Amino acid sequence: MNILEIIAKKRDKKELTREEIQYFVKGYTNGEVEDYQAAALVMAIYLNGMNDREITDLTIEMANSGEILDLSSLNETIVDKHSTGGVGDKVSLILCPLISSLGIKVAKMSGRGLGFTGGTVDKLESIPGYNTQIQMNEFLENVKNIGVSMISQTLNLAPADKKIYALRDSISCVDNIALIASSIMSKKIASGAEKIVLDVTVGSGAFMKNVEDGRKLARKMIEIGKLANRETVCVLTNMDEPLGYAIGNTLEVIEAINFLKGNMPEDLRQVVFELANYMIKLSGKGNDDTQNKELILSNIKNGKAYEKFIEMIGNQGGDISYIKDISKFEKAKYIEQVKVNENGYIQSINAQTIGQLACYLGAGRIKKSDKIDNSVGIIMNSKVGQKVCQGDIVAYIHANDKEKIEEVKEKLLQTILIEDKPKEKIDTIIEIVK
Amino acid sequence: MNILEIIAKKRDKKELTREEIQYFVKGYTNGEVEDYQAAALVMAIYLNGMNDREITDLTIEMANSGEILDLSSLNETIVDKHSTGGVGDKVSLILCPLISSLGIKVAKMSGRGLGFTGGTVDKLESIPGYNTQIQMNEFLENVKNIGVSMISQTLNLAPADKKIYALRDSISCVDNIALIASSIMSKKIASGAEKIVLDVTVGSGAFMKNVEDGRKLARKMIEIGKLANRETVCVLTNMDEPLGYAIGNTLEVIEAINFLKGNMPEDLRQVVFELANYMIKLSGKGNDDTQNKELILSNIKNGKAYEKFIEMIGNQGGDISYIKDISKFEKAKYIEQVKVNENGYIQSINAQTIGQLACYLGAGRIKKSDKIDNSVGIIMNSKVGQKVCQGDIVAYIHANDKEKIEEVKEKLLQTILIEDKPKEKIDTIIEIVK
Repeated sequence: MNILEIIAKKRDKKELTREEIQYFVKGYTNGEVEDYQAAALVMAIYLNGMNDREITDLTIEMANSGEILDLSSLNETIVDKHSTGGVGDKVSLILCPLISSLGIKVAKMSGRGLGFTGGTVDKLESIPGYNTQIQMNEFLENVKNIGVSMISQTLNLAPADKKIYALRDSISCVDNIALIASSIMSKKIASGAEKIVLDVTVGSGAFMKNVEDGRKLARKMIEIGKLANRETVCVLTNMDEPLGYAIGNTLEVIEAINFLKGNMPEDLRQVVFELANYMIKLSGKGNDDTQNKELILSNIKNGKAYEKFIEMIGNQGGDISYIKDISKFEKAKYIEQVKVNENGYIQSINAQTIGQLACYLGAGRIKKSDKIDNSVGIIMNSKVGQKVCQGDIVAYIHANDKEKIEEVKEKLLQTILIEDKPKEKIDTIIEIVK
Repeated sequence: MNILEIIAKKRDKKELTREEIQYFVKGYTNGEVEDYQAAALVMAIYLNGMNDREITDLTIEMANSGEILDLSSLNETIVDKHSTGGVGDKVSLILCPLISSLGIKVAKMSGRGLGFTGGTVDKLESIPGYNTQIQMNEFLENVKNIGVSMISQTLNLAPADKKIYALRDSISCVDNIALIASSIMSKKIASGAEKIVLDVTVGSGAFMKNVEDGRKLARKMIEIGKLANRETVCVLTNMDEPLGYAIGNTLEVIEAINFLKGNMPEDLRQVVFELANYMIKLSGKGNDDTQNKELILSNIKNGKAYEKFIEMIGNQGGDISYIKDISKFEKAKYIEQVKVNENGYIQSINAQTIGQLACYLGAGRIKKSDKIDNSVGIIMNSKVGQKVCQGDIVAYIHANDKEKIEEVKEKLLQTILIEDKPKEKIDTIIEIVK
């Protein structure tokens, strides 16, 4: 077997064997296969496709290319949750303690933000003292002791995926459903999950811009899950506007805290409840949608989810006095109102632009090495479909750099499209694919 | 403009502009475009194709990537000749002095052999003293003074083509008609030719294994020639068995000398005469096939072609006493007869295998850095269609390494297929494409 034969096979639209895919992934990870050979093969895969068996083998081989988290010591089926990314997505912050408060163990490894989408780890780290970088044994101990732990990906998970993803990014081969699906699933499999609930975001603030693509991605991941023996459910959710109201690390943590205390923005509530419902279902703790959602609601109302959040934060060194008194969080120097100049109905709010503006204010990274400013961001005060009148506040800019305010304000207003005709609200839960 | 956009366009089957092709070729030559990006683009070109305009632009940009030979000081239309490669191909050695003897100037840059095909420069260098590495001004002076010069490619011709060719070789993208055509034509255009006669070889000893592919390659090169304003004619010739009888540098030089003295193997004669005919036509010195071929034959018979060969060799430092007395050439230590074990008709002789065996004996290079043994090689004593009886000699092995003889003998016999049914002779000149 050699890489030239493997490239030639895929070039000629032939099916690669498991051994050939393994040869490529191993060889590329250890440097025996050159970047340019991998590039040629990836382009051939992009153009000639791979069937579900091939994509699954690619996924499993990428998962096997590095460390694999072993969750067997928890003696319980662990259901993992993952989102394909969005703007204002603080779902994991809420969902993990909520699920744990229902007696289901949660062991969650998250990533950092890059570009216009935020990352759960950055949000957690805006809580003073909270340590996301603990050792694996401590992580597992935390899950055993209090039922939940949220950390950053400290393991060397799926290094082949990292290398192939970086390559795809530099050869215009990113937007391919099969390759995206195998990239996501390889990391989930390496994270040790047996069952997976995926939040597949769709819209201007997501990677999948339309429902059809989101559906294809969902189906592909479910197929991989099936063949890789990992039960997978996808919840397609709307990311055409930011989720909830807050965008920015501290601002989103505060929104999550408020949510856990019962102050739930409707779109965010729907996403959290639907994902929680399927996490309960996959863990085998309840099969009835209505009953599950009642349980979820009651644990918000009775404060158990909120208490679990405080316990989780405190357990990993976080200063819980901030959670109990959110006014302690450092605020941005400037909070600027953004008012509309016209009357009408909001037709659309480009979530990607909002994410980019928050990133520009300092809430996110352009490069991996960029520092994050936790206090800055944007609080939206409007949703698509809402009627607005001239002078209404549609958003607040939280900035530390005064000079950026006017520019952000102008671009923010440009990205909120207002017209004279009513606009129906967008469904938050688009569909369930399983 | 950036390389990611260019890759994405070709990935999506769109036509690249001249500027985009230029950006890629320049960027790749100077290292701004990475190997892996070029690999992805080349694979996309391989799979999604390029139209004739794009291929011509690619050809011209590759030609322009290095030095261009300026033949204008010769004040004459120079017709270049090129072969797509074969086994036993000593055509240039004969054709150049022959054409020059007819009063048509010949300025010929040739290459070295690699793999199973030989190179004209290696053959010339087996003549003691002959210098193939002269400066450009001396080269042009020689053409002016005696009408002919044959040298090696000392200029940095089409470096982009060299780099892209090496890349294609390492990513399984060699066998693509458009890319082969543009590679050949870029070197020809950089060599300064205004008109080009191409010997497109077809068969087991050629790159194009069947007539249909040979025809496609010919048409593609003619189309490029048209768009690049270089009149091009292709002669499709058979390379299903070695051309003539000799394979090996000194052995082929001797066959060429014998040819110029009137001892012409029929297949070699047909190729030389047809190519010469079209070189005369393109140079505007004669438009009638019969008349041209009569002229050619008369210059063989009257010794003018042979004398021109001696003049050319002597003019560049070659020891002409070797030409005049071929027994002076160093011979291989062992000359071994290869006899058949059966009766029948020769159905096929795999030219590539014969080339590889000669190479194994030391006549060629596997790697560029390998040294060549000029004296070794194979002299065939049979042609396809010939009737043979048990004990007949079908070839002679010229070897310096005794241990290799038995192995070569065995493989040689295996590659000569003999069956009991008559076999029609293969046409040497398959067709003319213009």
